[in-house]
Amino acid sequence: MSTQVEPVAKTLPARYYTDPEVFREEMERFFCQSWVCAGRAAQIPKVGDYFLREIAGESIIITRDQSGGVRAYFNVCRHRGTRIATRAEGNFAGRIQCGYHGWTYGLDGRLIGAPHMDESPGFCREDYPLNKVHSAVWDGHIFVNLDPHPEPLEQQLDDLPQRFAPWGMAELRLYKRMLYEVKANWKLIILNYNECLHCPVLHPTLNRLTNYLGADNEVPHPTYIGGAMGFRNGAETMSVDGQRRRDFLPGLHGEECQKVCYYAIYPNFLLSLHPDYMMTHTLWPRAVDRTEIICEWHFHPAEMAKSDFQANDAVDFWDLTNREDWGISELSQLGIQSRAYRPGPYSGREALLHAFDAVVLERERQSKSRRL
Amino acid sequence: MSTQVEPVAKTLPARYYTDPEVFREEMERFFCQSWVCAGRAAQIPKVGDYFLREIAGESIIITRDQSGGVRAYFNVCRHRGTRIATRAEGNFAGRIQCGYHGWTYGLDGRLIGAPHMDESPGFCREDYPLNKVHSAVWDGHIFVNLDPHPEPLEQQLDDLPQRFAPWGMAELRLYKRMLYEVKANWKLIILNYNECLHCPVLHPTLNRLTNYLGADNEVPHPTYIGGAMGFRNGAETMSVDGQRRRDFLPGLHGEECQKVCYYAIYPNFLLSLHPDYMMTHTLWPRAVDRTEIICEWHFHPAEMAKSDFQANDAVDFWDLTNREDWGISELSQLGIQSRAYRPGPYSGREALLHAFDAVVLERERQSKSRRL
Amino acid sequence: MSTQVEPVAKTLPARYYTDPEVFREEMERFFCQSWVCAGRAAQIPKVGDYFLREIAGESIIITRDQSGGVRAYFNVCRHRGTRIATRAEGNFAGRIQCGYHGWTYGLDGRLIGAPHMDESPGFCREDYPLNKVHSAVWDGHIFVNLDPHPEPLEQQLDDLPQRFAPWGMAELRLYKRMLYEVKANWKLIILNYNECLHCPVLHPTLNRLTNYLGADNEVPHPTYIGGAMGFRNGAETMSVDGQRRRDFLPGLHGEECQKVCYYAIYPNFLLSLHPDYMMTHTLWPRAVDRTEIICEWHFHPAEMAKSDFQANDAVDFWDLTNREDWGISELSQLGIQSRAYRPGPYSGREALLHAFDAVVLERERQSKSRRL
Repeated sequence: MSTQVEPVAKTLPARYYTDPEVFREEMERFFCQSWVCAGRAAQIPKVGDYFLREIAGESIIITRDQSGGVRAYFNVCRHRGTRIATRAEGNFAGRIQCGYHGWTYGLDGRLIGAPHMDESPGFCREDYPLNKVHSAVWDGHIFVNLDPHPEPLEQQLDDLPQRFAPWGMAELRLYKRMLYEVKANWKLIILNYNECLHCPVLHPTLNRLTNYLGADNEVPHPTYIGGAMGFRNGAETMSVDGQRRRDFLPGLHGEECQKVCYYAIYPNFLLSLHPDYMMTHTLWPRAVDRTEIICEWHFHPAEMAKSDFQANDAVDFWDLTNREDWGISELSQLGIQSRAYRPGPYSGREALLHAFDAVVLERERQSKSRRL
Repeated sequence: MSTQVEPVAKTLPARYYTDPEVFREEMERFFCQSWVCAGRAAQIPKVGDYFLREIAGESIIITRDQSGGVRAYFNVCRHRGTRIATRAEGNFAGRIQCGYHGWTYGLDGRLIGAPHMDESPGFCREDYPLNKVHSAVWDGHIFVNLDPHPEPLEQQLDDLPQRFAPWGMAELRLYKRMLYEVKANWKLIILNYNECLHCPVLHPTLNRLTNYLGADNEVPHPTYIGGAMGFRNGAETMSVDGQRRRDFLPGLHGEECQKVCYYAIYPNFLLSLHPDYMMTHTLWPRAVDRTEIICEWHFHPAEMAKSDFQANDAVDFWDLTNREDWGISELSQLGIQSRAYRPGPYSGREALLHAFDAVVLERERQSKSRRL
Repeated sequence: MSTQVEPVAKTLPARYYTDPEVFREEMERFFCQSWVCAGRAAQIPKVGDYFLREIAGESIIITRDQSGGVRAYFNVCRHRGTRIATRAEGNFAGRIQCGYHGWTYGLDGRLIGAPHMDESPGFCREDYPLNKVHSAVWDGHIFVNLDPHPEPLEQQLDDLPQRFAPWGMAELRLYKRMLYEVKANWKLIILNYNECLHCPVLHPTLNRLTNYLGADNEVPHPTYIGGAMGFRNGAETMSVDGQRRRDFLPGLHGEECQKVCYYAIYPNFLLSLHPDYMMTHTLWPRAVDRTEIICEWHFHPAEMAKSDFQANDAVDFWDLTNREDWGISELSQLGIQSRAYRPGPYSGREALLHAFDAVVLERERQSKSRRL
């Protein structure tokens, strides 16, 4: 890097996509030491409502406590370690009870019942609350952090809350959720999301609506990358035919109505803000070569209440595009596993990817230097 | 442990339930160096009858020889190592023949035929008998021991043969066999079997028939743990409605007719002696987090011969209870795998479990000191 | 080995069939440093025709270039490592294009298109051709070699081309292909192929057609083993009833018409030359205990053109025999995995197997000494 001519930036060595040990480490440094987007506050409207998420192999309960706050816990009873909640979502009806011996916790995590334990002289309920996971909410998005002493979510988001305030994300409501299982490393999904150089070849439908060379990318940020893209050929939103069948989101003005913002907030949140709806992807790495992806489409309640509300144009469009993207990401995974793979050259159109790679390397460097 | 106040006994660290290496070692020290209950002598009534069992990854043939004795062998031909018997049970018709090149063994294990081997000058049939596994029978139960020089079965059973003689176990005959696959470590099954503190929460049906606080546990023994429980609410046996539809076993008297004896004989035999029948579980660990379980219900032939003989009340009751137990054991496995898991406190009602844990630790200590 | 009496030759220790690390090494030293039979030149008659093979975990493209030559490449794009071809076979239509960003290669492997890369000052197309794999053709059989600097195929084949010239293999055409998945180490397939001592026990149908003691085995060669077997009971070829329903292959004379040549050409090619047809097996090891096998039956085009051409007698006969062989190989795999397995004695009828084992050991020795 000390040469005068800038060398061609290249993709990462294969081990970052194929080595289970690197994966294990990245699960720690990206998924256990960052704020991970878990879902939407609107998923748990009532006290005791909950849903589960699996993060780095851990089952996490996300619930709403008596005071209306969001809480998160490891899904592990403090008695004999039994997993407590078994359904993907539900309602705790005021208390969280283990189905084995009946140990019972308040929604605030305190142990409030432990049959026959009081007969044991040395036993003290206060010693056995549920194991807490930190949680926070940004504009309707729930984040959790498995680090026992996390930095505030605000630090990770930086200027995004202010920037995306006009979209009024907290107000939006889920229309459709799709779950995808992708046989590719989680970082390949992020790489794929952050360039449109592949759009002419891979996404003929999408390519009619947007100019793949017209991305207005931001200077990369240490915790996110992204940019905006406008429309072409008369398109007004990303949908099967480019037609916009819903009013603009009420807080938007001017050029906000003429673009889509695509942001990858590390490590697992892909936020796609359209003039008339919000699409979110959350990434759930399961193995070095396997990632589950939850894709959701959210609309404004005023639109959803209309008798002629339609949204499948947006869902179908992105579902098609998603499948194209997951398919090619799986082929990337397969190819990178080859002994013939060598880091290849990025074009200037893939600068965000190089920035993400640099974050991957920097976090590895930091965690290794911490270990020394 | 040097404090004056007795500390609360706690569950074992996670690795005993999650570490494949610990599992591998336990398979050696519990399943390859102890007497393992393989099944019932009545399964192989005739000369040449056989069944297979897989112990610590080894396929073992259990058969009856010409003199009527039980024999056990590794299921491996001495020629080129081919597995010989392929069906779970059958009859050898006087000889055990490998299907590859026809090497043939007597039921006593001697090599009696080896086509074209006699052309090899250095070859001697006596050098290639089937590899023997020690076997012994206790009151109808077949035990095998993979240790080449095992201690006698009597030493492992100690006083149990005398104690359980009244139940006349050898006389009883199989009515029903069920096979369960449980995604839990084998020791979690033993822990689950040896306490009824979970009965009110997990087993509402069972809890109506027996008082979960009324267990009359024996002082733990180095090779087994157990105790007896009486009935309540007018129940006379463990069945769907507590009704007893069969005569008492003929050898029982007095309070033997008013209780169930539940014994876990290490490492794999759960023996449940009812006033009118015998239930057995044998545990077959397959992986650190997976155990196959064979559950059998045995009744007295005189009862089984009656035209109005019924036994599904007992089968259905325990099948339901089994499924509840396996389900919660699987949840224990999942929870213990969490990084949030820490050894939790046992109540006084779980003293037998603490005793079993101590045996697990003691055998580990012994085998490690042997290695030094 | 210093005794005066020749000791009995024995099978290899278990690790050669059960240890994933030995498997990994053998994939290198046998499958990445030898010529591997990939298929038939007739599979890709036209320019751009291609098929894929997976060798040692690598997807390899085998295609025909503009000048009619056979070419082979790693199936990996030089841009971001994407797997390029996804279907098992097809036609490239003049160029090989990656489906992600459109990098495009000639059939000769040169990079001829790389969208937007020319904007990068340091980028040079000549630096990024497809990764070449060496290929060669012997009498219609395509071989590939992953070694970057392989010895010529002729060296591996030695005298075989001359010897088998009468069968006119290049002229023959595929009639039937069958794919088998076998849960056994690849070397057990070779061992099974190279002795007929098992024929009386395992193959009653085959045994009627050929005398299992009548094999005319050649002195083992460092790169192949094999021999010929005649017929008996009036059989004229290997088929369901021993009847020959096709003319002799036109180049054969005299005793060539009265035998079958069975040759195992290391590491993956089993060549069975019949008086009236050719059967080939290619072995594709997938794991230490799993091998995919492609079996093909090839006939002379003049025969295939006849209105009364029949070949299912040959296909059905060998399909039955194949299944018997794979089944017993799987049982060998299972038995050898036992702790009870010890190397067992080979008879004189299994001398070719001992020779193959010696090659396995010799190549291991060579590669270990190279590493020092």
